[in-house]
Amino acid sequence: MTVAACDSVQMGERVVVIGADAAGMSAAHQALRTAKAGGRELDVVVLERSTHTSYSACGIPYWIAGDVPRQDKLVARTAAKHRSLGVDLRLGTTAVALDLDAGHVTAAAADGTEGTLGFDHLVLATGAHPRVPGWALDPSGAWIRGVRVVKTLDDGAAWVERVSRDRRPDRAVVVGGGYIGIETAEAFVRRGLRTTLVTKREVMGSLDPDMGSRVRQAMTMGGVEVVCSEEVDALETRADGSVAAVRAGGDAFPADVVALGIGVTPATELAKDAGLPLGEFGGLLPDERQLVADGVWGVGDCCETTERVEGHRVFVPLGTHANKQGRVAGENLAGGSAVFGGVLGTAVTQFSAGGEHVEIGRTGPTTEQASAWGEEVVSLVTESTTAASYMPQAAPIAVKVLARPSGRLLGMQIVGGAGSAKRIDTAAAALWFSARVEDVAGMDLSYAPTFSPVWDPVQIASRRLADRLG
Amino acid sequence: MTVAACDSVQMGERVVVIGADAAGMSAAHQALRTAKAGGRELDVVVLERSTHTSYSACGIPYWIAGDVPRQDKLVARTAAKHRSLGVDLRLGTTAVALDLDAGHVTAAAADGTEGTLGFDHLVLATGAHPRVPGWALDPSGAWIRGVRVVKTLDDGAAWVERVSRDRRPDRAVVVGGGYIGIETAEAFVRRGLRTTLVTKREVMGSLDPDMGSRVRQAMTMGGVEVVCSEEVDALETRADGSVAAVRAGGDAFPADVVALGIGVTPATELAKDAGLPLGEFGGLLPDERQLVADGVWGVGDCCETTERVEGHRVFVPLGTHANKQGRVAGENLAGGSAVFGGVLGTAVTQFSAGGEHVEIGRTGPTTEQASAWGEEVVSLVTESTTAASYMPQAAPIAVKVLARPSGRLLGMQIVGGAGSAKRIDTAAAALWFSARVEDVAGMDLSYAPTFSPVWDPVQIASRRLADRLG
Repeated sequence: MTVAACDSVQMGERVVVIGADAAGMSAAHQALRTAKAGGRELDVVVLERSTHTSYSACGIPYWIAGDVPRQDKLVARTAAKHRSLGVDLRLGTTAVALDLDAGHVTAAAADGTEGTLGFDHLVLATGAHPRVPGWALDPSGAWIRGVRVVKTLDDGAAWVERVSRDRRPDRAVVVGGGYIGIETAEAFVRRGLRTTLVTKREVMGSLDPDMGSRVRQAMTMGGVEVVCSEEVDALETRADGSVAAVRAGGDAFPADVVALGIGVTPATELAKDAGLPLGEFGGLLPDERQLVADGVWGVGDCCETTERVEGHRVFVPLGTHANKQGRVAGENLAGGSAVFGGVLGTAVTQFSAGGEHVEIGRTGPTTEQASAWGEEVVSLVTESTTAASYMPQAAPIAVKVLARPSGRLLGMQIVGGAGSAKRIDTAAAALWFSARVEDVAGMDLSYAPTFSPVWDPVQIASRRLADRLG
Repeated sequence: MTVAACDSVQMGERVVVIGADAAGMSAAHQALRTAKAGGRELDVVVLERSTHTSYSACGIPYWIAGDVPRQDKLVARTAAKHRSLGVDLRLGTTAVALDLDAGHVTAAAADGTEGTLGFDHLVLATGAHPRVPGWALDPSGAWIRGVRVVKTLDDGAAWVERVSRDRRPDRAVVVGGGYIGIETAEAFVRRGLRTTLVTKREVMGSLDPDMGSRVRQAMTMGGVEVVCSEEVDALETRADGSVAAVRAGGDAFPADVVALGIGVTPATELAKDAGLPLGEFGGLLPDERQLVADGVWGVGDCCETTERVEGHRVFVPLGTHANKQGRVAGENLAGGSAVFGGVLGTAVTQFSAGGEHVEIGRTGPTTEQASAWGEEVVSLVTESTTAASYMPQAAPIAVKVLARPSGRLLGMQIVGGAGSAKRIDTAAAALWFSARVEDVAGMDLSYAPTFSPVWDPVQIASRRLADRLG
């Protein structure tokens, strides 16, 4: 079979990458670039169990909403493009076992035939599995009809088919109040579905609850029925087996479709079976060079990583980190020297439907997280406007600044109108350099009436907290 | 008279502030707050020659354009509000002489009566004068009819009256290609005037020419006739004395109105006469506490300041610095301790008219500036999109990154569609902390398809330059 045959034509060192999404493909291409720059021969093979590669999972809600016209628009690079750049990409090929001592992967092709592939360097980029509660599946382990996650291109295609057919569903329930939940609720509202969102805590659990409640209010105004602090117990089904309602907290919420967005867990079965150590979140534990064991690298959503403020291990499965980590591993395994600087948990999203537009940005630990780490957290929410208050584009913006009593910045959370979200990058940059709140208040940020009050909202908020800290 | 009478009722130390705009009023209020917090008595008198206080000069182009409905919307705080907060604000009162040894100001009221006012602390916040070329004035020193700057509320009111009357002018010429020039050209186009902009260099001289040319192209597409690299020699006038055309580089550009935006110079006559030293730009030379001499503080546009990257003296008359410097001086003179951290020259603006929308952001020295300081500058322009390329809101964005050959970030310039400009704050924050280009590429910035490609354009550009630097 193809997998095994390759061994005989190996020229230089061989890198085997398992997983052909952002992390894996970044590693593959960077390895080739670094090797080329260093005059080294490198044979880079990527094994991917699905038939897709390098697609934007984050774009799927916008494909469902209708912003993205076709699936291929979400594919950053086609398989053909990867191959033309020198990557030996093998789709439909599943890595089924690793032998780290022998230095080979056992892989199964789509037809079930297996073979082994030797490697000098192994990159584990196996991603994450969506969390799927038992109530979402029938006794055979298949989805109850109408229920599905929002994760892969196949999921996306299924959702697009559902919401764009002539007899589209009338009622949707979204389970989960994080990024995927909010964005999927937006998509459903924009497609004309009556939408309920059920979340076990406040909306946007990556914000402090007082900031999350602002998002909830906007979503409610935008037409979403938001049910907080409830967990789904069970589904009700119709005679044909399709979902009829979602039961949570003693209530039943009618549903023709149910979208699940309750998070992911690292896909590390292969690594675990090979004896690699896993962390408390079940992820690989790479060092700052993304090395997990001699010759073995871990990148992307299958890994835990280090948060930069205090150095704790965290699990933050995001494409931004996947890309950067892939790059770091690729450079290092090919003889370069790169370090992944850690994560702040910086993220943005928005809910824009039903006449409401709310943007969300966050960086650093929440109050709950920082408190759990033993920090004393001082914080303040400050309301201002996204532009000079006299300008027509001025929208409300609330900025919460979190700091240590010493004045060291810990994090920031932003909820507001158009132009709010990306301001979080300013805070992220400051946090990256261990800024004090006073520093943020004093930095030379930009101003024009169309974009900001004279003091940017990020600075107004930081100024107020700095003054309070004295 | 009122001015002198105050001497007899003095309670604690007296602060006299000259100039009641952003810098002066920030100093006044901060002095009161700091004094109150420290249990000190402070008598704060502000002398202002005009009848206006604390208004947004930056908002005037948008008042002319019609975005701002009334003059009072541009007034951040009324005189009554300032007084209710404890500031002894005296409008229509001109400081005509300083005696620093004696510690008193000679001031003239509107009726011409003069008096002296003693001070323990003096804050000079006298602002800047617009540059007015000789050709703009008639032999008596009055404006040629139809010609005016865009600086004060009175200027704004005059422009609003001109462009909103029934028989509005048909043709406008804007002289100057900086912020005011671009924003005023936008206002004129939006008011339906046929508009020509004449500038002696490229549009937006605070950008490198290759970036400024992008702004020029957008303005041209948006309906402005842009004439670069030409200086105005003279005006042609009609029989009634009003302007008829602007002559530049051998051409005559018909004009019913001419707006001047060719910069400002520090208003330091009073300080100079009092023997205070001035710098090469004619501005006061405050230290990092904003002190210019014993008991004398300088803030805002009448001052030169220090750029943070290399410590050079620069003249950057912007409201953001005025506010911060006023705050620093107010705190220090009232017994506190504050430092102004310098400027990066961070600024944003936009041109949005005639179906075009271009945003501009910049921070740090231009290539020309840095070269003049003896730096070797390495730079790269990178084109990407403001959102994920598959999203409908994705607009082109060009990011120019400037660095030393060592990799130290020197500055950044951004020109692009909606969502571009405020990204400069991320670069400004990094530059504030002396980042390397490699650091910027590695920071944890936010991503969602509605707001950014997976790598933010600021990072894509930094990554490319970092790779080139090796």
